[in-house]
Order: sequence, then structure tokens, then C-alpha cells
Amino acid sequence: MSYFRENIEKMAGYEPGFQPKDPEVVKLNTNENPYPASPEVLRAIKNITAEQLRRYPAPAADAFRDAAAEILGLSAENIICVNGGDELLNMAVRAFCDENHPLAYPVPTYSLYPVLAKMQNCPAIEIPFDNEFNLPAKLVSAEAVLTIVCNPNAPSGTVIPKEELAQLAEELKGKSVLLIDEAYVDFAEETCVELVKKYENVIILRSMSKGYSLAGLRFGFGIANESLIKGLNKVKDSYNADAIAIAAATAAIKDQGYFKKNIEKIKKERKRLTGQLTDLGFEVYPSRANFLFAKYTKQRAMDIYEKLKGKNIYVRYWAYPDIKDKLRITVGTAEQNDKLINALKEIISQAG
Amino acid sequence: MSYFRENIEKMAGYEPGFQPKDPEVVKLNTNENPYPASPEVLRAIKNITAEQLRRYPAPAADAFRDAAAEILGLSAENIICVNGGDELLNMAVRAFCDENHPLAYPVPTYSLYPVLAKMQNCPAIEIPFDNEFNLPAKLVSAEAVLTIVCNPNAPSGTVIPKEELAQLAEELKGKSVLLIDEAYVDFAEETCVELVKKYENVIILRSMSKGYSLAGLRFGFGIANESLIKGLNKVKDSYNADAIAIAAATAAIKDQGYFKKNIEKIKKERKRLTGQLTDLGFEVYPSRANFLFAKYTKQRAMDIYEKLKGKNIYVRYWAYPDIKDKLRITVGTAEQNDKLINALKEIISQAG
Repeated sequence: MSYFRENIEKMAGYEPGFQPKDPEVVKLNTNENPYPASPEVLRAIKNITAEQLRRYPAPAADAFRDAAAEILGLSAENIICVNGGDELLNMAVRAFCDENHPLAYPVPTYSLYPVLAKMQNCPAIEIPFDNEFNLPAKLVSAEAVLTIVCNPNAPSGTVIPKEELAQLAEELKGKSVLLIDEAYVDFAEETCVELVKKYENVIILRSMSKGYSLAGLRFGFGIANESLIKGLNKVKDSYNADAIAIAAATAAIKDQGYFKKNIEKIKKERKRLTGQLTDLGFEVYPSRANFLFAKYTKQRAMDIYEKLKGKNIYVRYWAYPDIKDKLRITVGTAEQNDKLINALKEIISQAG
Repeated sequence: MSYFRENIEKMAGYEPGFQPKDPEVVKLNTNENPYPASPEVLRAIKNITAEQLRRYPAPAADAFRDAAAEILGLSAENIICVNGGDELLNMAVRAFCDENHPLAYPVPTYSLYPVLAKMQNCPAIEIPFDNEFNLPAKLVSAEAVLTIVCNPNAPSGTVIPKEELAQLAEELKGKSVLLIDEAYVDFAEETCVELVKKYENVIILRSMSKGYSLAGLRFGFGIANESLIKGLNKVKDSYNADAIAIAAATAAIKDQGYFKKNIEKIKKERKRLTGQLTDLGFEVYPSRANFLFAKYTKQRAMDIYEKLKGKNIYVRYWAYPDIKDKLRITVGTAEQNDKLINALKEIISQAG
């Protein structure tokens, strides 16, 4: 017999991208930032004292909230800190959804959303994107209580303009919370953060993993009006962010100069890599994230993925019907991207 | 209107103990270890590199699991790492309980359990302890799917012998998981960890917050048979433990020599403080934790709590009917305990 709830017994857990232990591989599979975090982060970590570890941390991570609020032009009461952006997604599904209160999102998108729905035993309404990843009109009539739009979207890297998401928030008012997952927004040209001032039903999710090179730290935050933040706090673990993570994330977000330079480097490489992949015959979606979604028609994407793996280069491939002809490739350093392009040239020429 | 589920809308969040920002207060209210963590922990933290922060951490925190498995004489497959023990409680309630699958636990106990039940919208069956905090026989017939016993119990500090919990596990087999919350077991004389080898339905919860002086780090772990661990992994956040916390917690658990000396110091102070409180006229429960549960009949516990606060000494008081005549006092350093005793002498003599 199983002690687990039926929905848990039946479900498979989320499958995170492969994390090779060998530091020598070219790792372009889980969208880590290829450049190191600000030196201020390591300084903050080295200054941690035994006394800070001995005591419980600040439950609401006030130091970070104050710093982020100032940068965003909001109040600390608009911000909730989480142990990685995934925790906020988990909390939102838990706070709003159940068997009679569905979750909705366009697909293909971040593959954690359906896993969270299974965990919560709530219906997941999946509305397909069109080929250009435009916002599906049907999201409005989905009758969900929580609507998630990943923007820039993973794995496509595409964006939906702020005006369209503002319109969606307006149409969903009184019916559904609109959670805009901006995990990759640091690499885009615009954010929807100002929508939280106008719409009572908008939550913005931010992550320190990508733009701030801190995937190993687990730190993210949610932005919304005070009333939504208060409700989300009820399902928050009391001390979800640890003392070191709070200090490190605060140091990172305060160093906006370093951050902006880092982002520019990635945007430059993104442009270069897009050009090179296109020259090789890939169709590359216009990306506003730190990865590219690339389609190749002359060989199976899975074969290219396997051959790259054989050369110690990891990209992401999913065997799902709607995306199995594509690869998602993280924008790496110039050196990593060159290795990838050279390997792809070999693979393509051998097949030809 | 509210977008939140009805159970979330109605509930109040968990109220963590007050965390004063002034480092000068005598803080005996949230059971932190008064001594610093092993120097190996700070060394591990100072050795963290930007590369470790840039990449996602090991999803299962393998380094810690291997170290803990060796110390406990178990396999790494018996261990799941969590972002503080509270996360495991949260995951267990989520994995086993729902509207038709209740949670049961004896009371008074850790006040997070009913909050988690409200969050999950599952019935919480509370079985009162007797005056000596013996295991209530009614737990067996509660028809819960998850039974939690905090052992040593908070706030009483009392323990239930391993044999009685083995018997309970036996009787609950096929009906309920028995989660033994051993957050304070490092200060006790025996652990129930070996029960996981014999009983398919036992989960042991451990914390690095108390015994290892790492409340600020957020690191705990669960111990159970492989099948329960696999199921719990489905509701675990992929990267719930961060790279720094994994390195620090691993360094802490490996330094068993330092750990044992630290524990002995606290046990010695616990004995001394128990004697002094008894001399002052308090009735003190026999404690196997790093705190004392003390009853005073000549003055209201709330008044003593407030007067201590006026002297910058924080202990824990709850206005619940069954425990409002008692205070929970963390065992501090000799110096802190002396300050507490001197303050209590003053308070008592002024009232008399």
C-alpha cells in the first residue's frame, strides 16, 4: 500500500536539467549566467559571522526587500523573498489553486508549471501558443484562478509586449491572478513590474539565478500589491531565506553597475550566436533571454543533442511532440559559444 | 473579493518567535544554540567560489547525504535534505494529507503543525497529552494518515521512550506515517533513527539549527526508507538547498568532535539552570532539549515574561489556555543564564 495521496503517488517529480559534475564540460543546458557574480557578493559571504549563523535569519529578509524596493521604485511591502523563484510558483499554486480552482498557462513553457498543478491536484489548463509565440486570446476565457505567463518565455526566449499583458490583467480582474514569470527579464528590453501599481491581480516573479549569476544561491522575489503579498506570506515558510543568501543577494542587487555590464556582455554574445546559428541553417526565435531556441530541419534535434553531448557540450532537448525539432541553447561565454559553433559545424558537415 | 482559496483566506500565518535586532539582548526565546558553530563551517563558507554560486547546486545535496549517512550508519538513499526542518513538515503534510486524510499529533506541541494543516485544508486531530506528557494512547485510533510526534517535545522538553514510539509505529502500520520530529534530539539521550530500518512508515526529522548552531543557515534532513524518500522527493523543490548551505552543513556534521563538546556544555548548563529555577520556586519539566518549560504559580507567567522583556531578556510565552501558566526558556550561556536568574530573583522579590 502507499501512504501518499493518490495525485502524489501517480505523478512524476520535476526533472531538473542535467548537472554534470565535471567542471570542464561546456554547460549550455540550464541557462546559468556564464560570468561570475559581482565581487561584492563574495565579499558579503566572507564577512558572514558565526553569530549570524547561530541566530534565525530575518523572517522577511528586510535588507534585501529594502534594497530591491529602492531600485524598483516600490515599497518593501510590495516584495516577498523566496528560496529561488520556483518557491514562489509553488506558493502561488498552493495559495490560489485546488481541485475546483484551475491553473492556466500558454504552452510550450516552463515545465515546472504542470508538475506544481499535479502536486496541488488542481486542473492545469494548457493553451497552445501559435508558431510565433503570441499571447493566446483563450487565456482570458480559461476560467482559471491563477494564470501564469513566462515572459520572456522559456524555452522560446520570446516576449509578449507589456501592453498586451496589461490588457490581459485588466480582462482577468476579479477572476484570476496573473503571475508574470520574469525569471529571464534581466536580458529583455522591458519589464511588467509597473503593472503591480495599476492591477490588484498581478504578481511579478524575479530570480537572482540568471541575471545576477547566483543559481547556486537560491534567491528570488515576488512583486505585487500589499494585499497579495500578505496572503502569500501566509503560505511562506517562516525562515525560507537563509542569513547568507540574504546578505549575498542584497550585495548583488545593490551592485547595479556590475550587473548592467554583465547583461550587456550576454546580449552581445546572444546577437553573435544568433547570427552564427542562422548561418549554419538553424531557425532561431528572436530571443530576449539568455538562451536561444533553435530549430534545425536537416537532422533530428535529438541526434544533434546526443552528438554534442559526445563532445562534452550540453544543451537542452525535450522529446515533447511540439518542441522535439528544437534545441534550447544557453548563451555562454564567447569561448564556449565558439566551441559550440565549431562542434555544430562538424556535426552538420559529417551528416551532409 | 479575494483570489485566495478559502482556507488560506481564513487562516493566520505562523507567528515566529520575536527576533530582536539589538545584539545586546539576552535572547532565550527561540531555542538557538548559544555557542558558535564549528570553525570548519566558517572555513567552508569562506572557500565558496563564484563558480559554485553561478551554477545550480546539486539537487539532492549529495555531499551532505553521504556524510550524514556515514555518521548514522544508513545509506544516502535514506536521506532527503531540506531548507530547514519546517520544509520537511510542509512537504509531509502536502504529500500525505488532504480534506479526507487528516493529520494527528499530541498537544501542546510545536505550533507550526496546525498552521500546516490549515494551509493544506486537512483536518488536524489534536490529542491532549496528560500532565506528564506521556504518549496519548488515542493517537492510534485517530485515523490520521500522518501522525507527528515531536520528541523531545516542544515546548515541554520531555521525551517519549523509543520503545513506545516503536510500538506506535507498529500499530499505525498500513494506516499512518509516523513522523518523529527530532529537531531537539541532539540534546537527548536516545534517538529513534533506527526505527526507519524496521518500520516502513517512520520518518525522522532532523535539524542543523539547534545542535549544530546553524539556525541562520536553514538546513535539515529527513530519514526514512527509500520508498518514502522517493515519494517525498516528488514534492521537493528541485534545488531547495543552496550551494553554500550544503557546504556549510556538510562541514558541520563532519565535525562530530566539536558538536559533542558543544552539546555537553549545554547539558551542563541545562542541569544548573533547572536547579536554580527550582530553587526559585518554579516547577520545571524534566528536559532533554535545549530549553526548559517552567511553571510558576505565585505570579502570572505573562507578567514575568513582560518584566523580563523590560530588562531586555526574552523568553517565550503563549497565551493558550493549556500553557499560559508556563514559560519556555532556552538554555543560554552561563552568563546569559545568570542574568536570567538574577532578573527573576528581582521580579519575584518585588512581587512578594
